[in-house]
Amino acid sequence: MRKKKTEPVDKLIDDLAREKNRLLSFYLDSYSLGNGQYQILTHIAWDEGQSQEFIAKKRNIDKSAIGKSVKRLIENGYIYKTRDENDKRAFCLFCTEKGRETVEMIGHIIFDVDQLLTKGFSQEEMDVFKNITKRMSQNIRDFLLVK
Amino acid sequence: MRKKKTEPVDKLIDDLAREKNRLLSFYLDSYSLGNGQYQILTHIAWDEGQSQEFIAKKRNIDKSAIGKSVKRLIENGYIYKTRDENDKRAFCLFCTEKGRETVEMIGHIIFDVDQLLTKGFSQEEMDVFKNITKRMSQNIRDFLLVK
Repeated sequence: MRKKKTEPVDKLIDDLAREKNRLLSFYLDSYSLGNGQYQILTHIAWDEGQSQEFIAKKRNIDKSAIGKSVKRLIENGYIYKTRDENDKRAFCLFCTEKGRETVEMIGHIIFDVDQLLTKGFSQEEMDVFKNITKRMSQNIRDFLLVK
Repeated sequence: MRKKKTEPVDKLIDDLAREKNRLLSFYLDSYSLGNGQYQILTHIAWDEGQSQEFIAKKRNIDKSAIGKSVKRLIENGYIYKTRDENDKRAFCLFCTEKGRETVEMIGHIIFDVDQLLTKGFSQEEMDVFKNITKRMSQNIRDFLLVK
């Protein structure tokens, strides 16, 4: 199975996302925040009061994975939950002060990660990259919307 | 926390990888193969006889996650393991006939996913995208290598 074919775009995206997350882990490890947790924490900080189920659907995370991450984030004092007034079985998620400070700090890390990712790139190349990734994401959203 | 800033490259990559995996799940769900499992299965098909630990390191998957995926792949008859002759505590992973056929089938799915991702793109745009993603991945590898 070692036949060399044209490299699929799928693989390029996977490779880049994986390397990027490896880099992010390098920075986040000292804060005991896994990749999944930091993404959920950032999501909550930007869109407070949403339910776990909403975030799972929005970010395409499976239910057991988000359950574990939310549990760890609560245990570590980054977030807290309150019962949803409209749906007694559901919970709404909010950032604590520590959570908010951490998201701020993560912002600086993301800036460093971005600097490293785009090292040696011209502004024009960056614009093309942003335009292409957004159109690709939109292609998929359009396709899944009509399914 | 709703202040709008320049969108980080980190987020663009996450969004694209997430949408791409959502699309892939759409195709793979009927085969009872999660995103993680298909990636590991494909890795084993292209590089047979490697250990679970090697693949985990190579693909930046944590140990408990790869353990679960390998277990499911074995249970579903896609792969099998044999004891490593050089290291009695380790196992080598191989594809079964069913696994190989599935990887072939996944190849067609990846082709469809690629077609959809790149819908409306010129060859020139694709070349730029491939060049940029590869250089970004390389930037990270170079950085992590010296750490």
